[in-house]
Formats: sequence, structure tokens, C-alpha cells
Amino acid sequence: MVRRIKKTSRKFRIQKKVGLPPGTLVHVGERKAEETRIIVIDYDQREFQEREIENIEDCFPFKDKPTVTWINIDGLHEVDIIGKVGARSGIHPLILEDIVHTAQRPKIEDLGDYIFIVLKMISLDENQGEIMGEQVSLVLGPNYVISFQEREGDIFDPIRERIRNAKGRVRKAGADYLAYTLLDAIVDNYFVILENVGERIESLEETLVTHPTPETLNMIHKLKGDMIFLRKSVWPLREVISGLERLESQLIKKSTGIYLRDVYDHTIQVIETIETFRDMVSGMLDIYLSSVSNRMNEVMKVLTIIATIFIPLTFIAGIYGMNFKYMPELEWHLGYPVALAVMLSIVALMFVYFRRKKWL
Amino acid sequence: MVRRIKKTSRKFRIQKKVGLPPGTLVHVGERKAEETRIIVIDYDQREFQEREIENIEDCFPFKDKPTVTWINIDGLHEVDIIGKVGARSGIHPLILEDIVHTAQRPKIEDLGDYIFIVLKMISLDENQGEIMGEQVSLVLGPNYVISFQEREGDIFDPIRERIRNAKGRVRKAGADYLAYTLLDAIVDNYFVILENVGERIESLEETLVTHPTPETLNMIHKLKGDMIFLRKSVWPLREVISGLERLESQLIKKSTGIYLRDVYDHTIQVIETIETFRDMVSGMLDIYLSSVSNRMNEVMKVLTIIATIFIPLTFIAGIYGMNFKYMPELEWHLGYPVALAVMLSIVALMFVYFRRKKWL
Amino acid sequence: MVRRIKKTSRKFRIQKKVGLPPGTLVHVGERKAEETRIIVIDYDQREFQEREIENIEDCFPFKDKPTVTWINIDGLHEVDIIGKVGARSGIHPLILEDIVHTAQRPKIEDLGDYIFIVLKMISLDENQGEIMGEQVSLVLGPNYVISFQEREGDIFDPIRERIRNAKGRVRKAGADYLAYTLLDAIVDNYFVILENVGERIESLEETLVTHPTPETLNMIHKLKGDMIFLRKSVWPLREVISGLERLESQLIKKSTGIYLRDVYDHTIQVIETIETFRDMVSGMLDIYLSSVSNRMNEVMKVLTIIATIFIPLTFIAGIYGMNFKYMPELEWHLGYPVALAVMLSIVALMFVYFRRKKWL
Amino acid sequence: MVRRIKKTSRKFRIQKKVGLPPGTLVHVGERKAEETRIIVIDYDQREFQEREIENIEDCFPFKDKPTVTWINIDGLHEVDIIGKVGARSGIHPLILEDIVHTAQRPKIEDLGDYIFIVLKMISLDENQGEIMGEQVSLVLGPNYVISFQEREGDIFDPIRERIRNAKGRVRKAGADYLAYTLLDAIVDNYFVILENVGERIESLEETLVTHPTPETLNMIHKLKGDMIFLRKSVWPLREVISGLERLESQLIKKSTGIYLRDVYDHTIQVIETIETFRDMVSGMLDIYLSSVSNRMNEVMKVLTIIATIFIPLTFIAGIYGMNFKYMPELEWHLGYPVALAVMLSIVALMFVYFRRKKWL
Amino acid sequence: MVRRIKKTSRKFRIQKKVGLPPGTLVHVGERKAEETRIIVIDYDQREFQEREIENIEDCFPFKDKPTVTWINIDGLHEVDIIGKVGARSGIHPLILEDIVHTAQRPKIEDLGDYIFIVLKMISLDENQGEIMGEQVSLVLGPNYVISFQEREGDIFDPIRERIRNAKGRVRKAGADYLAYTLLDAIVDNYFVILENVGERIESLEETLVTHPTPETLNMIHKLKGDMIFLRKSVWPLREVISGLERLESQLIKKSTGIYLRDVYDHTIQVIETIETFRDMVSGMLDIYLSSVSNRMNEVMKVLTIIATIFIPLTFIAGIYGMNFKYMPELEWHLGYPVALAVMLSIVALMFVYFRRKKWL
Repeated sequence: MVRRIKKTSRKFRIQKKVGLPPGTLVHVGERKAEETRIIVIDYDQREFQEREIENIEDCFPFKDKPTVTWINIDGLHEVDIIGKVGARSGIHPLILEDIVHTAQRPKIEDLGDYIFIVLKMISLDENQGEIMGEQVSLVLGPNYVISFQEREGDIFDPIRERIRNAKGRVRKAGADYLAYTLLDAIVDNYFVILENVGERIESLEETLVTHPTPETLNMIHKLKGDMIFLRKSVWPLREVISGLERLESQLIKKSTGIYLRDVYDHTIQVIETIETFRDMVSGMLDIYLSSVSNRMNEVMKVLTIIATIFIPLTFIAGIYGMNFKYMPELEWHLGYPVALAVMLSIVALMFVYFRRKKWL
Repeated sequence: MVRRIKKTSRKFRIQKKVGLPPGTLVHVGERKAEETRIIVIDYDQREFQEREIENIEDCFPFKDKPTVTWINIDGLHEVDIIGKVGARSGIHPLILEDIVHTAQRPKIEDLGDYIFIVLKMISLDENQGEIMGEQVSLVLGPNYVISFQEREGDIFDPIRERIRNAKGRVRKAGADYLAYTLLDAIVDNYFVILENVGERIESLEETLVTHPTPETLNMIHKLKGDMIFLRKSVWPLREVISGLERLESQLIKKSTGIYLRDVYDHTIQVIETIETFRDMVSGMLDIYLSSVSNRMNEVMKVLTIIATIFIPLTFIAGIYGMNFKYMPELEWHLGYPVALAVMLSIVALMFVYFRRKKWL
Repeated sequence: MVRRIKKTSRKFRIQKKVGLPPGTLVHVGERKAEETRIIVIDYDQREFQEREIENIEDCFPFKDKPTVTWINIDGLHEVDIIGKVGARSGIHPLILEDIVHTAQRPKIEDLGDYIFIVLKMISLDENQGEIMGEQVSLVLGPNYVISFQEREGDIFDPIRERIRNAKGRVRKAGADYLAYTLLDAIVDNYFVILENVGERIESLEETLVTHPTPETLNMIHKLKGDMIFLRKSVWPLREVISGLERLESQLIKKSTGIYLRDVYDHTIQVIETIETFRDMVSGMLDIYLSSVSNRMNEVMKVLTIIATIFIPLTFIAGIYGMNFKYMPELEWHLGYPVALAVMLSIVALMFVYFRRKKWL
Repeated sequence: MVRRIKKTSRKFRIQKKVGLPPGTLVHVGERKAEETRIIVIDYDQREFQEREIENIEDCFPFKDKPTVTWINIDGLHEVDIIGKVGARSGIHPLILEDIVHTAQRPKIEDLGDYIFIVLKMISLDENQGEIMGEQVSLVLGPNYVISFQEREGDIFDPIRERIRNAKGRVRKAGADYLAYTLLDAIVDNYFVILENVGERIESLEETLVTHPTPETLNMIHKLKGDMIFLRKSVWPLREVISGLERLESQLIKKSTGIYLRDVYDHTIQVIETIETFRDMVSGMLDIYLSSVSNRMNEVMKVLTIIATIFIPLTFIAGIYGMNFKYMPELEWHLGYPVALAVMLSIVALMFVYFRRKKWL
Repeated sequence: MVRRIKKTSRKFRIQKKVGLPPGTLVHVGERKAEETRIIVIDYDQREFQEREIENIEDCFPFKDKPTVTWINIDGLHEVDIIGKVGARSGIHPLILEDIVHTAQRPKIEDLGDYIFIVLKMISLDENQGEIMGEQVSLVLGPNYVISFQEREGDIFDPIRERIRNAKGRVRKAGADYLAYTLLDAIVDNYFVILENVGERIESLEETLVTHPTPETLNMIHKLKGDMIFLRKSVWPLREVISGLERLESQLIKKSTGIYLRDVYDHTIQVIETIETFRDMVSGMLDIYLSSVSNRMNEVMKVLTIIATIFIPLTFIAGIYGMNFKYMPELEWHLGYPVALAVMLSIVALMFVYFRRKKWL
């Protein structure tokens, strides 16, 4: 239990280097990757090149060519690599600071020569059923995209595949379309998570009706926490993408507009699904509480029925257990059977009463 | 029970093909129709033609005539038919993707040559009392409307009837008026569903007051879920129709404006009714919970009255059941009747006490 | 009980003719008047004429004169009369449809030649304490006002009186001022209803503190329902009047502006009072629930005190009621009084304990 | 109790004269002053005159001088005095109607020649701890301010003092600054009330933790009601003052702007404090309810412990109280002590059980 | 306990000097510093001077030089010092009043020659775990910044250090950058507090699941109160900084824009974290309440099981404790063992029943 809580609340941990001058590169967040890994993909309609690079300097020749260059950097803890990339690409120190500070809020900034986008990618830790967040930053220049991830992931693999095989529009289009494709992959991935959440809600709803336990309550609250987390990641995403759509920048071609609007629609759909889930989860809490209430009610009824039947009977038995010398009934020949008959008729009366009250 | 839940939650199922290039046609959703059925209606003020078509190619000659052409396609699972329609009509691949992806959020898009509208049509499964959603897409061009439905339905039948018999304005007006008529039919249909929901609320309110059971609670929550579902379908509808109203497109004539405003008013009315229902349903939850509370209170009172009366009496009986050698009362001639009299007066006192407390 | 609920929920009944071409006149709603009654008042600063008219045709000569003409039509079920009025006055079929469809949402529409206003008039059924809604439509033309009501009412009587006696500004001003006066009368009437509601809240608050019963809860929920109903009627009224105020139409003179702002202020006041009442009513629900809780608590305390005192005593009596042969205490001369003393001291201890717990 | 409720709800009483032509002067509200009292203060940087006036006509000569004239009228029930003031100052009849109708919502209206401001002044009835509202209207003309109060108050006394002694800016500035000073005094007075409310909350919070009673609940609800009342008075105040600030009127000098912004800031502060108080009060309700819940829990535990310990013991005593002829234990020499020992060990076991459950 | 409450509520105390002319300098708030302390730092890219000053007059020569001058004043109770600073720097009396009135709401005002910013700095009283607020005011002129604090603090120390050692951009930039740095330090400090709050939430969540006590409830409510307080401080901060960003003032250079946007992002992040915490805390209240409910349920079950088992048994024992002369069973040789056997089988039946009900 404790473990889960620790992990959950870590999602919201605030980490901040206080007292350093602005623009100082300090990696904030967990170190999620073993080492920094740089993969460069360089393509246009005819050519294609893909290379893993050891020395960061090796990727700049690609970038300076007129072809589209996608530099993907996994692992943010080696800040000097990030620093070099920034220096060579003319990225503002504050932007670099945002890249390595993984508690960033999703946002978009147009800096004229390039557009900076930071957002949250969500994944599911299969072992523990935990929803994990990871920060992804994109720098979109005239003919290049630099993407920064906290760890290696397979979300961008289908895109690489499409570039390699020249499937779809991607090889024919520019860097802005590539950036869109990356955004699209990230947003699509939310649907996978939501499907998982949806299934958990479904199975929880079933349990709720058949046999709710305090554990059920715990799971409802875990779901609630996950929803808070997802919301926090997705809401600003909407602003980011609508910002990108409205941006009047030469870096984004007109023809990419319809694609951006498509991602925007998906984001809205993600948000609405989350809101719907929130409604459903809070409805589940209501069901849980009223089922607990109902159960209590039932327990009380059993107690009351038992007590109401037997307490008077026991009293009668007590009467004839008294040791007074002069108790005429005790001497009667039919005393005992009459007493039993009286008791039985009390039980019968009670029974009628409970029936009327609809307790039986 | 399980069945219901499965069905309910399916309404919100998120289905998404992840990793495919944008614009790939994949049917997402249940296959609700046996086979795709295409009906073409072609008319102007004087002429009228209606034909069911086997081969999709047969409907383009109609479309290219200056008369108004309405191509209605039921069934979305044969994506190549949709693809052909799209290719011949110059519909953007992303739009086609939206048409066959039935988890779309209602929206409107103006693409210059045509306007694309997607919305949710609601129907009631009579057997199970389930509210079902179905996606309807409209493509409105200069002199044609293409409508896509997931399955055959009878909602558009009165419109066909009106076209056949040249009743109302429809034969005199253009494609935009036809599109309006379709929207109007869809929105009007919401009222039918709302009337059903209203009746369920009414009958539930009665049960609630007379004899609420845990089943009542279940029905309240089902109603709540239905409301969430309806809301999710209708809220964006409002934006769609107000968007259509404000659109500055040559495809929509000025004279159609007042009709669109009329549908818009109906949509607002649907939304407000849903909000009112929501308020009423959440009020019902309150009534239910407080009636459970009241019932518990009553049970407790019965228990307390019984216990409070008999426990002291039993104690007195217990006293004179003790076997001490020297208990003077036991020897008294009037011991027994006096003891009974004491007991009776205790009962009388209790009775007065309960009366004062208003428990009896 | 059942009756009340039926009536309440009827307020929200949705009635809709599905499948008819738009603009078809169908009266939707209860038939509240015996027969349609038409009263024409025609006046200017010097002249005044008032006449009840049998044949609708008779009122058009008045309308075509330069004097101000007020045609008041009570009863909407004879749709052909409404149709004739519409045809002669050039009212759009959709507007006529709205007039006879009494589930309309309050709205305003500027159609150039005339302004159409539809709103809800609230009245109180004295016998049953029911709040009833009625639809009132106004058509304001250059020199005429046509008002449509569902049934005869006395709300406009003071206005007629003022016109007859040339009291106030009304005879000097135009048709727009007359329309304002009608609106003002309708809005003022809300205050009467609110005063009634306020008194019910007051008396309920008193009951709530002195002796709440389940009936009290019922009345709270009835109040809540009434509030939902009032809100639904008044909120759009605000938009209507502010719309009228902002309208740039030649039909409304500048000098009428300050009067419209005055009605607007009243509407805001009505809305705020309703919101305040809502707050108070939901506060009452809280009080009710916590008073039920408190009561339960008290019942539990009585039970616990009785049980806690007598159960141990009964146990002691039980001990000395055992029939063991060798029980030395039974033989003691002072056994009985000592046992009684022990019991008394237990009672005393309990008493001290309860005092400390503040249960007594 | 009843008295309090009556008074509280009176705050929200709606009073409206229905059926009179607009602009008719009817005093609505309690008559709070014995008789109307008119005080005129006339000043510029050098001169100063203050006079109580019997006949309203005597104050117009002051008003027509170029010096700043402040006419303060206490008591609104003598409507003919108000009427005369209005007629001589050219105040619109509807404005006069608002002045004497004391259920007005705070608002501002720019009528060109003068600005009309109506707001609520709050005071504390020391005897009963009641928060009372009073309507104050201001008419700001080029060189005069007319203020209308329901009764004499001492809130404006410090301002009079400042004018008399030429302290601060007031004697150097114009009528707009005087109006600002009056507004400032009214808003400042809210802080006094809020301080009182704050103290009540503080003392209530203490009681809540130490010994909550149903009376505490009552006080929480009274606080809640007061908050609703304050809110209703202050929220529109904000619009009034920001409206005044944004007003482009020649009646308000540029240099007064910063002062108005200052009052505006204070109003925001009042509003935020009220909102904070609302949050705190609703938090208190939660605490109260859970403390009641906790208390109930405790009562239940005591009952359960007593019953769980003694019911089995009493049963054992009952066993050996049976009169069967052949009960070997009864004959045993050690029967009685063994029975007692068994009972003791049951008590010990119970004790261990309760310890584990953390009930003791 | 009492102490805490007093302190908490003091945070919201409203203090207001009523009746004084606007612009009168009165220190409102606690006196938190022993004596006023003035430190002047004067620098440009090459030079640097830092001096603690006794006489306020000594700092003006610095201010009048073209270098950047930062005058930091700790302690606001000596209003004549503040007054002198104001007079020499041409600060408006109302602004000075705001500086010494420490219950100010965060705001920004552009007065042309200088910009005035007032905000709340949050710190943590280590001893008591109390969150304390302090008012900080900044006056930003062309080449100077005057900062006013209620007491000495170490939050600005790293900035001083950076100026001394010419680290970062600060020595190269102007007064606007210095003001930004101060704002940044204040906002960064919120993160420290939030981290502390986050840890408290985490540890509370653990307690909540393992063993909730009424003390837990108390801590939840304390957290809630802290959240209300933080919210009240931070929300207006957002407007302040976005106001500063949008300000079109010559005092703020274009190049400072990106830095301001950065602080703005941080503020948003602080706000969102607070909102997330609020959600979590209110979720904790739900968990607490339902765990209390569950516990109650469990207690009731134990009581019911014990009572349900033993009450019937005791009754049977009571039967055979009756003293009727003719009770055949008493004479039977196997009467006693049979009676015991009957009792045992009742226990067995009960056991089966409870198993079915899932109470055991």
C-alpha cells in the first residue's frame, strides 16, 4: 500500500532549484535512462539516412543540410550534451533550462527562429498498473526537429518505420509535418491509456454492484488520483495545440493546418473522455457509500429483529424465575404450557409487525 | 446486471488505431449493418427520382447534374466504398477517416468546396430500454448532400416522404435546406428520447417516495449515466449548429439562416432539459439517501424502545430470581403483585418519556 | 402525493411534433382556455378605443391606422386564427410555429419589420400552491403590438386601466413603450411569486428547527424543484431583455432605453433572489440531514445509557440466581443488601462516566 | 429562535408595488427614521458652511453656487420631499423611484448631467449581533452631491469632520472627490463587519473542536446566511465601482481615477475575504458533521464493548440458573469458583480482542 | 489546539483604519521586525557598492546616479521613514499607504514614472509548521528598485550574492531585470512551501489508510486551511505578473519579456499544484469519512453477531430457570445435555447464516 502511495504522490512532486541564476542547466527529475542516446534521421523525398551518434558534434552537419533532420535525444541527465545542442542551435538558455527541468507544464513558445513545445507523454507501467508521465520537448526549426525524451520509448517507432519505408505523407512534407506526426503519436497514446482506465472503471463497476469491499474504495480513490494526474497533463496540451494552430509563424505551412486541427480534435476528445470518467468515478463513490449505508441498515435490522423478539420473551422467563413464595401461576398445573403459549403468540405478533414494516 | 454495465460503458469505449499514418481509412466501431446500402434521391422543383444503387459509381451522374442530389449511405464497414465516394467527390482523406471512425466528437468543418458535419443520432433500443448512439456524417456541397449512417434508420423517412410528395419548402429550396432538414430531424429525435427519460424520472420519483429499494438507487445511477452520455452528445452539437449559423460560406443561402436559428433554439432547449433532468436526478439521490437515513432512524427507535422498556424489567425479575437465603421481599405475601406493579409503573414512565421525545 | 409529482414533472414535459415540415402550425401544450378571445385596444394621445372582436378580420383596420394598436389574443389552440393573424401581418411561419408551441424557450428575434419576443409568465395556482408557467408571445411592429397568451389573465389589467385613464406615459408614447409596459408587468409578477416562495422558505425554516419530519424533507425538495423551474424560466429572460436593450432597431426609440434598463435591473434582481433562495434551500437540506443525524445520535445515547447501566446489573443478579450448591455468599446474612449496594455503586460509577462524556 | 429567523429572512424580502405606472414614487421598505432630516454642507477651498434645513427649497441656492454642495437626506418615507429634490435637480422619475425603493440592487447609471449610484451600507445591530443592510443612493452632479440614506448614521461623520477642519484633500478637490470619499467610507465600513464575522468564525472554530453542540450547527448556518447576505450586497458593488472607474464622464476628473482604483482594490479585498470566509464556514460544517459521526462511533463502541462483555457472561449465569434436576456441575464443590474463573477468562479474551481492534 | 486556531485565523484578519483621510500613513499589521533596516546596493557592469544605512537621506545620492540602485527596507512600522522615502522619490501617498498596510491584495500599478508591485512572500515557521505570509512591495523606477519587507529574510540573499560576484546576467542588465530577479525569488520560494505541503499530504495519506484518528481529520482541515491561504496569495500573483508582462511601459525592456514569461509559467505551475493538492485533500476527506463509516459498520457487525448468538441462548436458559412446579423437561435425566445440545445447534445455524451474509 505504502509503496503505491509513494509512487502516486511522486507524480506531483515539486522540484525546484532555488537560488540559482535563471538559465542555469540543472537536471530536475528522476534519472530514467542509463545514458544519453542520440539518433539522427535525415531525409527528403528521395534520400534517407538514420544513424545513432556518439558525439553530439556529429549531428550538426545533418542539421545544416536542406533535408529534414530529426535529432532524437533520449535521457536528459547529461546536461552538458543538452547545453552543446542548445549552443549550436541558438536555443535560449531559459528554454534549455525548461528542457532538463522535467516538472514543466506543457506549453508552446514561438521564438521566431524556432518553436519550442514541451508536453507530457503518458505511459503505463505494465507490472504495477501505474500511469507514468514523461516530459517530451520538441524544438522545431526551419528544416529540423529536435526531440528530447527522458528515456527511450517505442512510441515514435511507427513514425521511424513510416519514414524509412516512405509510407504516408511524411517523406514528402517538411519539418512541421514531422513535428505534427510526433504530437499525433503522443496524443494517440493517451487513447491507449484511457482504454486501460476505461476497462478498470468497467471492472470496478461490476465489483461495486456484486460485492464492494474497502479495497474497492481504495481503487476508486486510486482511479480518482489517476484522473487528477491525467487532467493535469492534458488540459494544457489543448492550449499548446490550439496555440500551435493559431501561431502565425513561417515555420508552419498552411497545408499542415488541417492536420493540427485533427490533433486538436483528438485532444478535445481525450479531455472529454477524462471528464466523463471523472463523472463516472465520482458516481461510483456515491454508489459505494450508499451500498455501505444499505448494508449497515440490513445489519441493524437483523439486530433489531433478534432483540425485539427475544428481549420480551426473556423477560417473561425472568418473571417466572423469581423466587417469591406466593406466586400462584407457579403452582398451576398448566402454568408452563400457558407461559410457552404466551411466548409463541408474542413471536407471532412480532412477525406480523415486521411484515408490515417490510423488514422481512 | 453485468450485461447492462458492459453495454453502458461501451458507449464511452475509446477506440483508436495507433501507429497508422493519418488519413488511413479504418472502420472503428461496431459493425451495425449487414451490408452497405446506398440510396440516391435527386430532385428539383419539378422532377424527382429515387433509386437504390448497387455500384457506387452509378450515383455520380446524379451528383453532377444541377438538381439537388442526396446520397444516403447506410453502413460504414466497407471502407473502400467510402474511399471511392471520397475520391470522386474530392473529400480530404482526414475527413474520410473521421467518417468511418465512429467515436468522433460532433464538429463542423468548412473546407471551402464543401462543409463537413459529424454528429450523434440518438435512438432507443425498445427491448432493453437502452439509449444508443450512432454517428451521422453529412457532406454538403454546392448541389448535393452525402449522408453517412452506421445503420439503416427510419428517422429520415418523413423527409423522403416530404420530398416525394413535394410537401413543405424542401423541393423548392437547395442542398443547404436539405442539410438543415436532416439536422432538424436528428435534433427533433432527441426530444423523443428526452420524453422517454422524463417518463422514467417521473415513475422513479413515485417509487422513491412510496418504497425505495437498492434497485431504485441502481436506476438513479443508470439515469445519471444516461444523462452523462446524452450531455456528451448534445453539448458539442450546439457548437456545431451555431458554427453552421455563423459560417460565411457560399454553400449556405441567407434565407436558410432563420431555419438554422430554429434548430439552434431546439438544441438549446434539449441542453437545458438535460441540465434540468440532471438537477432532478441528483435531487433524487439526495431523497434516496435521506430516506435510507430516515428508515435507519426508525429501526433504531424500535430497537431502543424495546430495549429501554424490557432491560430494566428483566433486571428486576433477575433480582428476585437470586437465591440469597435472606431476602425479606420473597417472603412477603404481596411480594409478587408489588413487583409486577413496580414493573408496570416503569413501563408507564417510559411511555411518558418516549411521548415527550416524540418517538411514539 | 402522486398527484403533486405528476403535476410538478409536467412542467418539464417535452412535447414535440416529430416528422412534420418546419412551419406547420400545431398547437403543442395544454388547452388552457375555453375559446380564443381577441381584444383590440387602439389609442393615441387623444383618442381611445377598446373592443372585443369575434372575427379576426375586424382587427386589421385598427392595425393599419397610425394610432397605436394592441391586439391581445387569449387562447392558442385555434391555430387557424393565429395563422390568419400571421398571414395578414407578414409574420414568418416559423415564428407562428413558435407562438403556438408552448414549450418554447424565452428568446427575442429581430426580423426587421417586427420584433418577436417569447417569454414565460408565472402564476400561482391558489388552491394547490402550485407554480404554473404560461407562454406569452409579443410581436412588436411599427405602430402595433400583438400579444398572445395561453389563457385569459388579469396581469395586463392595470395596463389597460392606465391606457383607458391616460395615466402615466403610456398614451403619449409609442408601441415600443407599450411592449415595455407588458414586459414590465410580466417581470413584476415574478416578484409576487418570489414573495410567496420566500414565505414558504421562512415557515419551513421554522419547522426545520422546531420539529423536522420526513414531510419537511419533501417540502424542501418541492421548493428545490420550484427553484429549478423558476430558474429555467428567468435565466433566458435576462438575455431576452438585454438583447432588446442592445437591439439596434428603428422600432425601439432611444427614450425607451432607460425603461428597458429598468426592467433589466428587475430581472437581475429576480435572478439573484432565486440564486439566494437556492443557497438557502440547499442550506436547509444540510440542516435537515444534520438534525436527523443528531436525533439518531440522541437515540443511540439513550439506548447505550440504558444498556450500559442494566446489562452489568442483570449479570450480577444472574450470578446469584445460579443454583450451585456451594455458594458462600448466598448463605451470608447480609448477602442480599451487599449485592444491592454493589449494584447501586455500579450505577453511581456509570453516572460519573456519562457525565464526563457529556452524555447527560 | 423564531425571532432570529424572521429577521434573517426579512433581509431578502422582496417588496414590489405591482401594477403602478413606472416612475410612481412609493417608498418600499421599513420606515427606519423618525422624520426626514436634511443637512447641507457647502464648501470650497476657503469657505465652509453647514446647515440643517427644514424646508427642502432652502437647499437649492447652495446647489446653484459654484462651490461644492453636499445635500444629505436621511429618511426616505416622505416621498414628496424626494420628489421635490428630483424635480428641482432634473432627476429622472425612474431614478427617484429607485431611490425610495430600498430593495434596489447596487448599480451605477450615467445620465449625462449626473451620475446615479445606489449601494448597500452594512451595519451591525450591537444588541442582537444582527447584520443589517441599508440602501444609500448618491447623485453626483457637476458641483454637487446628493446623498440619500434610510436613517441617520455616523459613518459619514469623519468626512464631515474632515471638511470642517479642511483635513486631507477634500476641501481642495471637487464633487467627484467628495463622492469618492463617501464610497470609500461605505466600503471601509464593510471591513468592520468582516472583522466581527472573522471573530465569530474564530470563536466558533474553537467551540467546534472542544465541544460541538446542535447550537454550534445553528451558528454555522447563521454565519452561512450572513455570508449569503454580504455576498449579495458586495458582488454588485464591485461592478459599480469598476463601472465608475471606466466611466468616460466629464463629471469625474482624471486625478480622481487613482482614488477610485483604491476603493476598487478594497472592494476586491472585501469580496475575497467573504469568499475565504465562505470556504472556512463550509469547512466548519464538514468538521461538525464528522465530529458528530465520530461521537456516534464512540457511543457505538461503548455499547458494543459493554454488550460484548456481559451478554456471554449473563448467558453462563443463566445456564447455571436452570432448574434441571440432573446438572452435575451444580453439585461440584468447586463449581461456583470455576464458573467465576471461566467468566473472568472470557473477559480477559475480550479485552485482548478489543485491544487488537484498537477500540480501547 | 486553541493556539493554532488563533494563529491560522489571524492570517485572514482584516485590519483597517476607518475614518482617516485617504493617504494617511498608518502601519497596519504585526510589528515583525525590531527596527527598520536599510541596505543599499548600487552597481553597474563594472562597479559594485553595498552599504547598510542609518539615515534614510544617505541613500538618495545612490538613487540619483545612473547605476542601478537597490534600496531594501526591512520593517514597516516606522512610517516616517517610509514617508520620507516616498516624498523624495515622488511616490503617491496612496501607494505609500498600501506599502505600510500589510493586508494588501497582490496587485500591480503603473504610475508612469514608476511601477508599483505588491505581493505576498510565503515562509514556513520551522518550529510550528505554520505557513506565514509577509507582504513585499517593490517600486521599480528607471534605474532603481526599492523593496519593502515586513522583516529581514534570507530569500534575497542569493541575489545579493549573484550581484556581488557578478554571476549570471544581473550585473549586465538594468533595474527591470533586478525587479524580475526579486519576483523570481519570491515565486521560487512558493515551491519550497509546496514541497513541504506535498510531504505532509503524502504522510497524511499513509496514516489515512493505516489508522485514521480524529487527529487525522484535524490535520486534513489544517491542510485545507493552508490551501485556502496559499490560494488567496497566489491567484492574484498571476494577474500581477501577467499584468507586468503586458504592461507597455518604458521601464521594462523588451529583452526582459522572456524572463517575465518564465516567472509567469512558474506561477501557473504553483497555482495548478495548489489546485491539485486541493483535489487530493478533498479526496482525503472522502476517504476519511468512508473509513469512519466502514469502521462503524464493523463495530455494528460485532455487536450484532454477539447479540444474535447469545440473546436466544440466554432465553432458553431463562426458560429452564423458571420455577413452575410442573415442568416435565426438568425431571428428565438427559434434560441438561439436551438443552446444551440445542444451544450448540443454534450457534451452528447462526454461524452458517453469518457466513452467507459474509459477515465472518
